[in-house]
Amino acid sequence: MVVSIAHLGPAGTNAEAAALLYSTWLFQKSDTISHLCPYPSITQSLRAVAQEQADLAVVPVENSVGGSVTTTLDALWEFDQLQIQSALTLPIAHALLSHAKTLETIKTIYSHPQALAQCQSWLEQYLPTAQLLATNSTTEALQHLEDNPTVAAISSQRASQLYNLPILACPINDHPDNCTRFWILSLQPSPGGRHTSLGFTIRDLPGALVKPLQVFADRNINLSRIESRPTKRSLGDYLFFVDLVADTRELSVQSALAELSNDTETLKVFGSYDVLPVDSLLSQPA
Amino acid sequence: MVVSIAHLGPAGTNAEAAALLYSTWLFQKSDTISHLCPYPSITQSLRAVAQEQADLAVVPVENSVGGSVTTTLDALWEFDQLQIQSALTLPIAHALLSHAKTLETIKTIYSHPQALAQCQSWLEQYLPTAQLLATNSTTEALQHLEDNPTVAAISSQRASQLYNLPILACPINDHPDNCTRFWILSLQPSPGGRHTSLGFTIRDLPGALVKPLQVFADRNINLSRIESRPTKRSLGDYLFFVDLVADTRELSVQSALAELSNDTETLKVFGSYDVLPVDSLLSQPA
Repeated sequence: MVVSIAHLGPAGTNAEAAALLYSTWLFQKSDTISHLCPYPSITQSLRAVAQEQADLAVVPVENSVGGSVTTTLDALWEFDQLQIQSALTLPIAHALLSHAKTLETIKTIYSHPQALAQCQSWLEQYLPTAQLLATNSTTEALQHLEDNPTVAAISSQRASQLYNLPILACPINDHPDNCTRFWILSLQPSPGGRHTSLGFTIRDLPGALVKPLQVFADRNINLSRIESRPTKRSLGDYLFFVDLVADTRELSVQSALAELSNDTETLKVFGSYDVLPVDSLLSQPA
Repeated sequence: MVVSIAHLGPAGTNAEAAALLYSTWLFQKSDTISHLCPYPSITQSLRAVAQEQADLAVVPVENSVGGSVTTTLDALWEFDQLQIQSALTLPIAHALLSHAKTLETIKTIYSHPQALAQCQSWLEQYLPTAQLLATNSTTEALQHLEDNPTVAAISSQRASQLYNLPILACPINDHPDNCTRFWILSLQPSPGGRHTSLGFTIRDLPGALVKPLQVFADRNINLSRIESRPTKRSLGDYLFFVDLVADTRELSVQSALAELSNDTETLKVFGSYDVLPVDSLLSQPA
């Protein structure tokens, strides 16, 4: 069997690294062969699956330093027929790629906004006057390097190998245990698992948020994350994204969701899924 | 009396527009004259007040489309001696500035990431192949324009006047009622008012979030916003930022905060304050 996996590209992004890891897991589990499809944005990689141009999408959800990837949450709310199949957490090491011989000549640094944010202190310390410019992906940043020693990009070690570009410093992320959680999504029903993710809007009062949370507390269902995003209707009107330690195959979770649908305006369940054990995959040769 | 107001610069940003509005209000209220001080980042404008280089800072908190300004929340958690003096909401109209005669020649667009996000659909419709590059501020984007007809920047109408740059299209924001809420902060105690903002971390279980929210629900104190940010310690470990419709001068609010300090690991109260009536100020000549 062959499946196509959409991800933020071009080749060399951390989303591609997550997609490669998932494809290794898929092959080991079921002899399934994956075909990776890079897209210029996270939204477009999710849209590709919603429109059946790809079977799966691997997208970043949150980083331990940068926080939620809001583009992913906003797109998932829009393409709500997508279901989460599994999650995986990838350690992230950022590298400074440049044709410069020393840091002194660098005036401009390109990268994805999350990568710039995750290296903020390092940049303030070593390149305090450099101008930071955010690109759509860490790999897209590389096209600005050319042979110019005044320019650098924050990207991955894999990208340095793929495009034969020198690394000037690595790792440069402020927190050594920097990691990003990814979701794997498709149009298939989610398989069930220890984690459930959902999104909702609330009617009436701002104070109405306690009620939905109480639904889970009453059943000892733990919330592992809550994130708010604007509905874009007006300031102060939010969508909430919630991750639960819960499996929708359990009756107590089903009753919680039934009660929740009464306390919310719109409720979207993105599925129940497990986190893939990537440690064993990461220790193997690619 | 003369006060200095730090804001994200250079002149022409929406933060400067908010600072100008606040300075008009200050002058009308107490004959206070303001001196505006532009800084290259939101963090630096808050640090300037924390280090007593400026009296006040005006910083964006959230936009009706882009959501929270996470830099502001992260910096406020760090500079926790700062107190909110008041809030104001500013309508935002984005303009496309360029020396191009028509949209067809434009290949690259520079702006602040929030501005790019707020014009996303317009850009997809009219400039689908243009490369988007994010800068530190909407005004900083203008330095890339030069006389080059392949480049455009998203900035304000005021910036177009200040720097004598032509407007090619305006407004280009996807939602006509696009607006941003700003906070005005200083080292003075907050004055008290209808709104209270605080931040906290939780001990123990992820499910522990219900307890802090229940503290307010029990007293009929309405939550108007909740936002999570990573503590940067590890994935799944969060800070929460909460806005309440409450005044810390009220006894019930004081008792809620006392109870909350038992249910949280670290609790920081950023103050109680009112929202300035900017409509009357906006309708006056500058």
